[in-house]
Amino acid sequence: MDAVIKIGGSLAEDPKRLRTLCTELSEFAKKYAIIVVPGGGKFADVVRDLDKCFTLAGEIAHRMAVLGMDQFGLLLCQIIPNSCATYLLSDVKQFSEIGVVPIFLPSRLMFKEEPLENSWDVTSDSIAAYVASRLHVAKVLLVTDVDGIFTKDPRKHADATLIERLSAEELLKFNQRTSVDCHLPKLLLESQIDCYVVNGKHPERIEAVLAGQQATCTLIAAGTE
Amino acid sequence: MDAVIKIGGSLAEDPKRLRTLCTELSEFAKKYAIIVVPGGGKFADVVRDLDKCFTLAGEIAHRMAVLGMDQFGLLLCQIIPNSCATYLLSDVKQFSEIGVVPIFLPSRLMFKEEPLENSWDVTSDSIAAYVASRLHVAKVLLVTDVDGIFTKDPRKHADATLIERLSAEELLKFNQRTSVDCHLPKLLLESQIDCYVVNGKHPERIEAVLAGQQATCTLIAAGTE
Repeated sequence: MDAVIKIGGSLAEDPKRLRTLCTELSEFAKKYAIIVVPGGGKFADVVRDLDKCFTLAGEIAHRMAVLGMDQFGLLLCQIIPNSCATYLLSDVKQFSEIGVVPIFLPSRLMFKEEPLENSWDVTSDSIAAYVASRLHVAKVLLVTDVDGIFTKDPRKHADATLIERLSAEELLKFNQRTSVDCHLPKLLLESQIDCYVVNGKHPERIEAVLAGQQATCTLIAAGTE
Repeated sequence: MDAVIKIGGSLAEDPKRLRTLCTELSEFAKKYAIIVVPGGGKFADVVRDLDKCFTLAGEIAHRMAVLGMDQFGLLLCQIIPNSCATYLLSDVKQFSEIGVVPIFLPSRLMFKEEPLENSWDVTSDSIAAYVASRLHVAKVLLVTDVDGIFTKDPRKHADATLIERLSAEELLKFNQRTSVDCHLPKLLLESQIDCYVVNGKHPERIEAVLAGQQATCTLIAAGTE
């Protein structure tokens, strides 16, 4: 398989653009063997709100948020042409081989095996990387609504610049919040997976990354080059 | 088993009161064999919003909303003392017998058997009644944030009055939206289950209904008396 592509839930804020992206993904799947992993989006936001009100146990909040990924995955299944949702890693390759875009719903695997810690440090970013490691896929794309990881929060600082490349080790030591979760760099290092943070509003960037070409994005490289 | 008790997701709007209710439920479970079925609440609201934006297929929206019940069930599991969540109807009686409050997470049963139609006419109300029918429980309590079913919407009409009792057949013919879903009266008729719409802000009413005593609520009676 060529790549795991996580579709961030925030992209659902702009339905028309998300539909365009999903149609393009289906086209890319004709050339590349891809697996779609859903983000949590609005559902994860509801869990965060409830967590604030009820001080949920880590395991409970984590499970609720993972179910949010299943929910968004079901939505993606409707809008990615020629796709099929599955709970089984074993289905993924078979679907791809017959030309169907596999959408992996993570709840059953996560609840059964509990391979990752139960905290907000682990979100759909880490789960996408974990799926890639399980399927021996060397590339993960985190498709979101920003161009990549910036030196500072670009919504607050006009002088923030896009980081085109950093190593997973550098990201581990990065002393501020980024658009990816805190556990991700550890997983990338362990599994030697390259990760690209890409803006889903520009599907051509996703295609370029799949083709191994230059694109506006952030590469989090497993190796140090 | 004595009763299926559905806890409406809207009760999470008032965390302190929901906690009080949940503590009381755990007490009631010492005297009565109860099964808790979660509502969908905020999660179902997110599905409704996405349905408006993406015009989801009935099956997709339904599944997403049912996962919302699982999510709220996990939360309830944290705040109902001495409770345990399960996907299996077969666990429910066993849990109850050893003094644990069973919380039924409906997704796996619903996805596997698809016993109810995939539409917004079927919500957690109907699913609670279906669980009761499967477990041969004759009483369902729909615990919500209003006193019961009114002659008119009480938020809009000052002269709305509480209906203390109506038959499932009468509810079928009721030509306006009520606080319960449209499919419910059919299910109650088929399974001959009595259903009580009760305000969860007054846990003593729930206890009264369990004890077969008078309480402020609406009884939807399966028979015509």
